[in-house]
Amino acid sequence: MKTKMKNSIRAEASLGFANVDLQRLERQGVPEVVYGAGKTAEQIAAILSSLRDAGQSPVLVTRLDAEKAAAVASVAGPDFTYLPEGRLGRLGEPRKPNGIGPIAVVSGGTSDQPVAEEAALTAETLGNEVVRIYDVGVAGLHRLLSRVDALRSASVVIAVAGMEGALASVVGGLVAAPVIAVPTSVGYGAAFDGLAALLSMLNSCSAGVSVVNIDNGFGAGFLASRINHMGGAR
Amino acid sequence: MKTKMKNSIRAEASLGFANVDLQRLERQGVPEVVYGAGKTAEQIAAILSSLRDAGQSPVLVTRLDAEKAAAVASVAGPDFTYLPEGRLGRLGEPRKPNGIGPIAVVSGGTSDQPVAEEAALTAETLGNEVVRIYDVGVAGLHRLLSRVDALRSASVVIAVAGMEGALASVVGGLVAAPVIAVPTSVGYGAAFDGLAALLSMLNSCSAGVSVVNIDNGFGAGFLASRINHMGGAR
Amino acid sequence: MKTKMKNSIRAEASLGFANVDLQRLERQGVPEVVYGAGKTAEQIAAILSSLRDAGQSPVLVTRLDAEKAAAVASVAGPDFTYLPEGRLGRLGEPRKPNGIGPIAVVSGGTSDQPVAEEAALTAETLGNEVVRIYDVGVAGLHRLLSRVDALRSASVVIAVAGMEGALASVVGGLVAAPVIAVPTSVGYGAAFDGLAALLSMLNSCSAGVSVVNIDNGFGAGFLASRINHMGGAR
Amino acid sequence: MKTKMKNSIRAEASLGFANVDLQRLERQGVPEVVYGAGKTAEQIAAILSSLRDAGQSPVLVTRLDAEKAAAVASVAGPDFTYLPEGRLGRLGEPRKPNGIGPIAVVSGGTSDQPVAEEAALTAETLGNEVVRIYDVGVAGLHRLLSRVDALRSASVVIAVAGMEGALASVVGGLVAAPVIAVPTSVGYGAAFDGLAALLSMLNSCSAGVSVVNIDNGFGAGFLASRINHMGGAR
Amino acid sequence: MKTKMKNSIRAEASLGFANVDLQRLERQGVPEVVYGAGKTAEQIAAILSSLRDAGQSPVLVTRLDAEKAAAVASVAGPDFTYLPEGRLGRLGEPRKPNGIGPIAVVSGGTSDQPVAEEAALTAETLGNEVVRIYDVGVAGLHRLLSRVDALRSASVVIAVAGMEGALASVVGGLVAAPVIAVPTSVGYGAAFDGLAALLSMLNSCSAGVSVVNIDNGFGAGFLASRINHMGGAR
Amino acid sequence: MKTKMKNSIRAEASLGFANVDLQRLERQGVPEVVYGAGKTAEQIAAILSSLRDAGQSPVLVTRLDAEKAAAVASVAGPDFTYLPEGRLGRLGEPRKPNGIGPIAVVSGGTSDQPVAEEAALTAETLGNEVVRIYDVGVAGLHRLLSRVDALRSASVVIAVAGMEGALASVVGGLVAAPVIAVPTSVGYGAAFDGLAALLSMLNSCSAGVSVVNIDNGFGAGFLASRINHMGGAR
Amino acid sequence: MKTKMKNSIRAEASLGFANVDLQRLERQGVPEVVYGAGKTAEQIAAILSSLRDAGQSPVLVTRLDAEKAAAVASVAGPDFTYLPEGRLGRLGEPRKPNGIGPIAVVSGGTSDQPVAEEAALTAETLGNEVVRIYDVGVAGLHRLLSRVDALRSASVVIAVAGMEGALASVVGGLVAAPVIAVPTSVGYGAAFDGLAALLSMLNSCSAGVSVVNIDNGFGAGFLASRINHMGGAR
Amino acid sequence: MKTKMKNSIRAEASLGFANVDLQRLERQGVPEVVYGAGKTAEQIAAILSSLRDAGQSPVLVTRLDAEKAAAVASVAGPDFTYLPEGRLGRLGEPRKPNGIGPIAVVSGGTSDQPVAEEAALTAETLGNEVVRIYDVGVAGLHRLLSRVDALRSASVVIAVAGMEGALASVVGGLVAAPVIAVPTSVGYGAAFDGLAALLSMLNSCSAGVSVVNIDNGFGAGFLASRINHMGGAR
Repeated sequence: MKTKMKNSIRAEASLGFANVDLQRLERQGVPEVVYGAGKTAEQIAAILSSLRDAGQSPVLVTRLDAEKAAAVASVAGPDFTYLPEGRLGRLGEPRKPNGIGPIAVVSGGTSDQPVAEEAALTAETLGNEVVRIYDVGVAGLHRLLSRVDALRSASVVIAVAGMEGALASVVGGLVAAPVIAVPTSVGYGAAFDGLAALLSMLNSCSAGVSVVNIDNGFGAGFLASRINHMGGAR
Repeated sequence: MKTKMKNSIRAEASLGFANVDLQRLERQGVPEVVYGAGKTAEQIAAILSSLRDAGQSPVLVTRLDAEKAAAVASVAGPDFTYLPEGRLGRLGEPRKPNGIGPIAVVSGGTSDQPVAEEAALTAETLGNEVVRIYDVGVAGLHRLLSRVDALRSASVVIAVAGMEGALASVVGGLVAAPVIAVPTSVGYGAAFDGLAALLSMLNSCSAGVSVVNIDNGFGAGFLASRINHMGGAR
Repeated sequence: MKTKMKNSIRAEASLGFANVDLQRLERQGVPEVVYGAGKTAEQIAAILSSLRDAGQSPVLVTRLDAEKAAAVASVAGPDFTYLPEGRLGRLGEPRKPNGIGPIAVVSGGTSDQPVAEEAALTAETLGNEVVRIYDVGVAGLHRLLSRVDALRSASVVIAVAGMEGALASVVGGLVAAPVIAVPTSVGYGAAFDGLAALLSMLNSCSAGVSVVNIDNGFGAGFLASRINHMGGAR
Repeated sequence: MKTKMKNSIRAEASLGFANVDLQRLERQGVPEVVYGAGKTAEQIAAILSSLRDAGQSPVLVTRLDAEKAAAVASVAGPDFTYLPEGRLGRLGEPRKPNGIGPIAVVSGGTSDQPVAEEAALTAETLGNEVVRIYDVGVAGLHRLLSRVDALRSASVVIAVAGMEGALASVVGGLVAAPVIAVPTSVGYGAAFDGLAALLSMLNSCSAGVSVVNIDNGFGAGFLASRINHMGGAR
Repeated sequence: MKTKMKNSIRAEASLGFANVDLQRLERQGVPEVVYGAGKTAEQIAAILSSLRDAGQSPVLVTRLDAEKAAAVASVAGPDFTYLPEGRLGRLGEPRKPNGIGPIAVVSGGTSDQPVAEEAALTAETLGNEVVRIYDVGVAGLHRLLSRVDALRSASVVIAVAGMEGALASVVGGLVAAPVIAVPTSVGYGAAFDGLAALLSMLNSCSAGVSVVNIDNGFGAGFLASRINHMGGAR
Repeated sequence: MKTKMKNSIRAEASLGFANVDLQRLERQGVPEVVYGAGKTAEQIAAILSSLRDAGQSPVLVTRLDAEKAAAVASVAGPDFTYLPEGRLGRLGEPRKPNGIGPIAVVSGGTSDQPVAEEAALTAETLGNEVVRIYDVGVAGLHRLLSRVDALRSASVVIAVAGMEGALASVVGGLVAAPVIAVPTSVGYGAAFDGLAALLSMLNSCSAGVSVVNIDNGFGAGFLASRINHMGGAR
Repeated sequence: MKTKMKNSIRAEASLGFANVDLQRLERQGVPEVVYGAGKTAEQIAAILSSLRDAGQSPVLVTRLDAEKAAAVASVAGPDFTYLPEGRLGRLGEPRKPNGIGPIAVVSGGTSDQPVAEEAALTAETLGNEVVRIYDVGVAGLHRLLSRVDALRSASVVIAVAGMEGALASVVGGLVAAPVIAVPTSVGYGAAFDGLAALLSMLNSCSAGVSVVNIDNGFGAGFLASRINHMGGAR
Repeated sequence: MKTKMKNSIRAEASLGFANVDLQRLERQGVPEVVYGAGKTAEQIAAILSSLRDAGQSPVLVTRLDAEKAAAVASVAGPDFTYLPEGRLGRLGEPRKPNGIGPIAVVSGGTSDQPVAEEAALTAETLGNEVVRIYDVGVAGLHRLLSRVDALRSASVVIAVAGMEGALASVVGGLVAAPVIAVPTSVGYGAAFDGLAALLSMLNSCSAGVSVVNIDNGFGAGFLASRINHMGGAR
């Protein structure tokens, strides 16, 4: 089972509670991302430290609430920034925008904003210009249609919506760019914490739409950035 | 438990296997409708006969396949008609259109047509003019938008769609009329036989939308007719 | 994709976090309704302000708890009223009743009252007389049957019930008016937060019944009002 | 783990593919019942033979289609009878009615009849008088209310219904006898093969109602008989 | 829709928020039971007061926590008792045991005790002797088998279990009495809040078992009492 | 609601049963794709004819079985080809490969092949070189690892797997290209017709993975092609 | 990513449609098992041929129906045997029993036999003595208790049951050996094709029980064999 | 129903609220384990006391939080130890490692650690050497592959993972030892509290894998120990 992976850098950093994947930057172009939920501030700070020591930047911490972020910040040093709109922590500076074009982040309603921002800030951190088109749900279609030009000038579109998630299909029918749909847990009753929007998006009648997990703004922003750097040097 | 219901007509016809509700016409303005699935042709014919004897017309038989319909027709007499597009049988003549305005039946795709026709033919039978706007799914939004005038001139709108069912929300945002959404079992995989469309429609971000059972074109047509005769003599 | 929508009024108000749909009143006869959950008091107040500036009234805010309502009230001005029974905020005065007839709101039990009130107060705000028939669940059928006259004099009926939701079918069989069924999350165990009542209502054996989302009293009241103004000037 | 069970009769008959429980009659008052689905006609005949040899009667075979029944009959002898309405086979004669009172079997619609008959025929076989009250679904409530006397004179009531299963709650509110609810798989779409009726019945707001499996007419008839022989010699 | 129900007593007491069913005692042998969840202490006290005024006793209040019970007690008077083991309130004295025989309440584990007690105390209140056989789950089968005599001397058995709910089937195979199975929400993970036990009990391979809602100890106790008074004066 | 969409070509072709979206090629770079399930051969042929008349090519028909394909072929003319491995029909010639790089289609097992081929043939039709890496499920990991070079040289990866769908996460961790995961309905029991694989892929711990509907090979191939032509002339 | 796996044998055989894992025997002690569903007879025969060429034996083919087995047999040669009771094909001779002790396969009912046999024949093929204890469901507990000695002398127990799956918990409480539970799809209604038994077994209150997929007799037999050869030469 | 179970020791200790199974040690080699959730500290202490009196050791208490553990410790005496990493209490000393080989506990991520520790500490308590291989999820496969030697030297492997649970299949393909898969509730959205990982593991394409309940680290550790003592004196 010998593989062609280069071994020129240290493969991982063992912290006892975690094995930090130090090859991730080389292998995938982006350092390991830290899933902040279910880790203590101390654990997060230690992981960030090991990544900084390995020269990896920028590093994102997802699902980080304000209180834990403050604790991380107190030990992580001045190159750590908290981005409350997207519940993200960031070690190091965002990359300069060098993608094929802008990424459009479209959202259905005001309540979807935290997820939309997680997507937008992730994409910005990874070197993309982002155009935000928020609160343009299909109940008032003219709001979306009046922004068709902005939408069509994007190289990738992220569609964020809860409730019935119809936005993804409508957007998918309007553009020629890849559309990444993010169902959110916004809604109540038969929304079943995002299940309705998830199923809706998976069954989109528009081609060119794929879906990530409920509330996974990070995953959408990460994938959009990857697509937006297609054809370039990786 | 004495109630004010009038008892001037015979309340029911007992056929052994069925108790036909002969008060339905007086009580609700429309004779009892026969659910054709799970009944034999003989049973259906006997029920129709008892309703005809009681002077009730027009009577609809739903979910009636062509083979069973032929068997019913052979005994039910010349006033029985089979409407294959909507899998409906009808005893007697349709009522003359006397509703507030036309009812629009909008469908997402060609595969939704049997359900859409069940709705349309039901509404026509019960005295409504019907405007059919088919195959206008949101993947090609201009097809729907070019028909906004027709849509807005309807007094009630029935939106029929499978897959992600986004049509209901988009239509709901464009009109001021009541919208009855009918999820269909069209689709595959995570459509889960209509569940995706059902949940989508229940969570519509557009106000003024209500939902009937999956593939229940009859129910939508019946309710649309009821709404379209509001304020008139019942 | 040119459409016939009039553009005589400003289409929307962009607040950064929200794009208020100012065409809604013209397009649908009722101003945009504010979904209060997941918005801050400041956001709600700003949206109300932009709607007031555009001369739109009355405006409803749904799913508004008492604490947030107080914060909204402190900035929204004297024309803002909080209706705690239905967790609703209202900007401006309710319209005068001018519908076809009264709307009956029927509920199964005392625990369904908040949802029933959300429906009733919404309908009253939008210009309808409302008759409340509460706590008439089918376990003691005589309570419902003794009110059949009131039920039958309504032009639209809203049936609100949790647990098994049988009320919708029973009511649906008694009246000739459109019935809007609202499943509630009242119950425990296999009620699954309203799923049992939802499925029950979707499968109602009574024709003329349609369903809105679990606990969606607002949606039922809104639709009932729309139906109750059929045929009139919109 | 010594127990007080009597061992005066042979405990079981080992047929290789089956271990027939010969103690069942002594232990529970009724011989083992044969679940016909998934067994060959030969296996069923062999089990019947071993039960006949042990002097146990009457024996029921459930979920037996006509073709398999004919094959069983050809080898099982003249004391085997097939009851097609309930898809039941019976070895031996039914017991004479000796219960506390009649058992009422109430059904919602014509399509529920096979399940209702499975219940009724089971109860008759086990020594009960049965009153059939069929096709009295709540969409036409007067059909049920006009039979309240018959319903109230029953010592046990079995309520059989598909779709939304509201019949169980309504019946439960009218009688003082134990009510056994049987959801059926009649319906389509969001009926989900009986799930809607099952959940509805489990959440009945009427006390005194319990539930058996979807389409389990046998189980309801068996339990009703057991209850109807309370206090007597077992 | 005239029925034979006697009207000799007042049918209901209208309290505004509630319509108390005063016919329940006559119609079903037991006064209306008050579902305590989702009602305020004031509402509960008012309902109890109206039932006391109508001479109905004993009255049970279910799902009543200690704090609310104290508030009810302070206004309800000395004939109100709180039974914390079963989260039950009781107005009036329990009836004297006059059933056919004892009711056995069997539970799987210590955590099932609150539900088991709700069943046991309900049955005792309604005039039954109760034998408690607790913590005899099937993982240590000898604990149950050593109590087979007590189990078999009961006229009705209530089987209370969470997790996989196997107790109901095992008990069902050992006795000739009717078995009422109560799934509980005890467990974690794939127990899905009682769903696993519920499905298990509905599919019991033992005949004579029926099921009530998850955690519905009251319903089981009520039904057991009804069965245990079969054949007597109601 | 005026939009900037060009109207230089005819927007749609109305066939009665269908409104063919003739703008699709201009708007999205690929002509409308025909969903073959639920349409008759005649309907498909008519749609193909209208697209050919509008000069649109190549056109794909999905979910087309061999029998219906033969009927279509008999009327559709010599430029119609049936591709049985992927249940696809194609009108016109495939485009010449002009994407950024090859697209890798990876599958877990032999039974996933029809879905994998649907993806591969779709991508080839739309102008992409495709590398097939089949039957490399994670139960024998060396089979996948020995192909890491081929995998890493792809510009987009499509991962097709049923059962537990682990392939998507493993592949996602090995490459820097966008990964489109396609759950298949291969499996039995708790695979629940693809639900297990779907949920697994949605929760992938590898970043850069998005998901399409169960068995939606077409959607994956279409999206992969779109991504593989990023940055070029559309 | 260099690993210590030996590479002394050819790692796989590429057949185009399949990559046969030739390392499986060395790596896991048993050759690759062929999942027969969804493969043609030709594909199966080719895979068997490549495994025979590599000297691997015995090889199992699962989920093989009789018709396909006959086709395989006609080309696979005399060392291929079909075992219809377990729907298994086998290439080569079964291994001689050399496990720690016998494996007991316990089943709830006659309908579970195909799954039980799949488990038993798999275990026998892989070198284990098997004791079959069939049709000992918990509805007649004495049938199981009378076989406790046989059960306790087994080194591993496989418990196969459908419906409520209670057998696994009861067996789990009686033995000190590892118990592998196999839910089957036997049952109807709320059995939901094995879901009820699956959930029941996952929530077993008996320790020492683990679960495989619904109807996965092969998996249970394979794992039981692996456990039964613990401590020996692998 | 006489069985061969020895009765040489007292079968159980009745504490009123609990019947402690004192035969468990003799019957299954390990004393009864106390499920700590849903019991008070007093109840737990009393059960521990009765087990200590019966000379049984070591005894585990699962799902014990720190606060309740402190209360137990204050009365349980010096031989009670709390193990916070696994939320376990232990009465008595762990057994000396005497299994066939080491047990490997492998986990996907840092958040899975509490469940992994519950498994590891349980196994250690019951006399097994444990090798911990944590945070080796498949997104960075080299972390797992670099530990293949340790993994392959284990006699039993426990694979603990949330999200998509792919770890179980990958590990299952690498080793010849029995693999016990533990899905965890780690994740969000479509992880549905562990359902995604559970289904994934049940459908593992690797043979030799069985599954326990979500988050059931105890069950996995217990079963692994049982397997690891195969062939020894029980």
